[in-house]
Amino acid sequence: MSAAPLTNDQASRAPRKVGKAVQDAIDRGAPNIDLALLPNLTDLSAETLTANVIAINSLCENPRLKFVMEKLVTHIHDFAREVGLTTEEWMAAIQFLTATGQICSDIRQEFILLSDMLGLSALVDTLNHPKPEGATEATVLGPFFTEDAHDIPAGGTIASEGKGEYMFVEGRVTDMQGNGVAGCKIETWETDEDGLYDTQYEGRSQPDCRGRLTTDKDGYYSYRAVKPVAYPIPNDGPVGQFLRKLNRHVFRPAHLHMQFDAAGFEPLTTALYIRGDEYLTSDAVFGVKSSLVVDLKEIWDEDKAKALGFKSAPYYLLERDWKLITIEEAEVEKKKSLAAYYATIQGNN
Amino acid sequence: MSAAPLTNDQASRAPRKVGKAVQDAIDRGAPNIDLALLPNLTDLSAETLTANVIAINSLCENPRLKFVMEKLVTHIHDFAREVGLTTEEWMAAIQFLTATGQICSDIRQEFILLSDMLGLSALVDTLNHPKPEGATEATVLGPFFTEDAHDIPAGGTIASEGKGEYMFVEGRVTDMQGNGVAGCKIETWETDEDGLYDTQYEGRSQPDCRGRLTTDKDGYYSYRAVKPVAYPIPNDGPVGQFLRKLNRHVFRPAHLHMQFDAAGFEPLTTALYIRGDEYLTSDAVFGVKSSLVVDLKEIWDEDKAKALGFKSAPYYLLERDWKLITIEEAEVEKKKSLAAYYATIQGNN
Repeated sequence: MSAAPLTNDQASRAPRKVGKAVQDAIDRGAPNIDLALLPNLTDLSAETLTANVIAINSLCENPRLKFVMEKLVTHIHDFAREVGLTTEEWMAAIQFLTATGQICSDIRQEFILLSDMLGLSALVDTLNHPKPEGATEATVLGPFFTEDAHDIPAGGTIASEGKGEYMFVEGRVTDMQGNGVAGCKIETWETDEDGLYDTQYEGRSQPDCRGRLTTDKDGYYSYRAVKPVAYPIPNDGPVGQFLRKLNRHVFRPAHLHMQFDAAGFEPLTTALYIRGDEYLTSDAVFGVKSSLVVDLKEIWDEDKAKALGFKSAPYYLLERDWKLITIEEAEVEKKKSLAAYYATIQGNN
Repeated sequence: MSAAPLTNDQASRAPRKVGKAVQDAIDRGAPNIDLALLPNLTDLSAETLTANVIAINSLCENPRLKFVMEKLVTHIHDFAREVGLTTEEWMAAIQFLTATGQICSDIRQEFILLSDMLGLSALVDTLNHPKPEGATEATVLGPFFTEDAHDIPAGGTIASEGKGEYMFVEGRVTDMQGNGVAGCKIETWETDEDGLYDTQYEGRSQPDCRGRLTTDKDGYYSYRAVKPVAYPIPNDGPVGQFLRKLNRHVFRPAHLHMQFDAAGFEPLTTALYIRGDEYLTSDAVFGVKSSLVVDLKEIWDEDKAKALGFKSAPYYLLERDWKLITIEEAEVEKKKSLAAYYATIQGNN
């Protein structure tokens, strides 16, 4: 098409087709979709919105993401319709999620806490880590893991002096046949005697009550720690306020977090719970499994205590072995678990 | 019970029942639930978790919150089970939500943007604002509303000089019978000619392309603005990255936001869309309704332009009247809408 070129005056008056921001967005990588591919999204109603949002998302080239989004949009919309979500409730949710994000830092993860208290963390953990009989069970990670734990030698301590009652932890990491797993990395973290993680103190300068160990050639490990105590999940933030509105008990029974990572094995995130704790059957984040409950022995032998590196007796002894499954064994379990799930679905229909 | 008092030495060794943190949490207001009321939460599986989370939440004393949480937990858990949510996907979601919260500020609301692109905002709007035939329809608020718009007199301008092609907006706010609504507060906001809101510029010192007006005794209003243009929803943050992964088009057709608030009437959040915009049928946030699409008249009369306060012709004229519904009329519509919803549910069963 040839037309007389616009004069400057006319050009300045010619309506722009799109804003500069549209071009900038495309330049930054926003997909420049052929509009002819899209459904007409005008006049959507409560009945037609869901299908149209799913249709728009279906241009996604990742089939897994497309599937996950289809289910997510369906459930979010069904939820809003079923409860008749009000504008005020929607805005309260926006504000809650914003506050939850804003309180997060390198050492505070309020969204994991939210996931924990909704039972989602425990569910995802259970779905992802089916275990054969005899293998050590997994449980929730929780929001207190940090990346900066120090390496601790065998028998060394993860807790500085004065952090609580002495506890000695030892045992062996093996495969399902009982063979020791050498060089298995262990991350472990716990509260002090006040029920606080190091990250909950202001001015934390270095990690405490957490450490990183490695099993020896026969799979053995040992370290000094303190006896963990029951504690509340942090209730000074948005999740704490939410739990209060729900009239929910916020306590977790005393536990010791442990995480295992060895070449060829499925990584294991788990924890040990101390028998006798009053919150053992009402964990605020649904993490307790019977197979992970342990007995502590109180040891009053002064010589033994000193030999281990404690100042004096008594100390608690926590003896515990762990059975890891290989990546192949984990795959087999996941397939079995999926098959069982599909059988359940068919049974329901 | 009487026992010999503990010596200091013994006392320091006596195991604590709970951590100091437990007592502190209770002191800060954490519900101190009678543990006997709680179900045994040990060894929960993918099959038993949901019912137990709902049982724990059912101690909530607010029946609406209890109901909403029951549905929310059910849908979140069903979603995770149906897609077999992996630990990696769960962690990606945690990180996404955290980043979404952290980019929010007084002038950026990324969670509303997320709600918008999921179609949730449009759905909540539709659920909450059923309108009788003839009443002005509502649409999504979007993430760009701010509280700090200046008051603008009738005929005054909301946009500083140079922000775009001139547009004059005028009309009347009435009730359903056509009677003018006096003293109705109007909030209005829009993009400049580059497709950017004032809040998207660094170093924003005061509001621009937004203002607050009041209708006169007969319901009339008028103001000067600029012709809004199509633009991308912000794609430089977590939601933008997400949209890219979904291969989603991120554009909104040109529109002018308007919000009405008058005593005795249901507040109305809506917008006008400009006919001819290429994104009119593919709005990234599902907000376009046919009844809200308007035609602009291009006016080349130099005298009229100057009389209105523009430097020169041309300007676009946007004439538009609005019909608000009273709070009572809104209640009637909501009841009708709920009745229709329940009829649909029964029809489906």
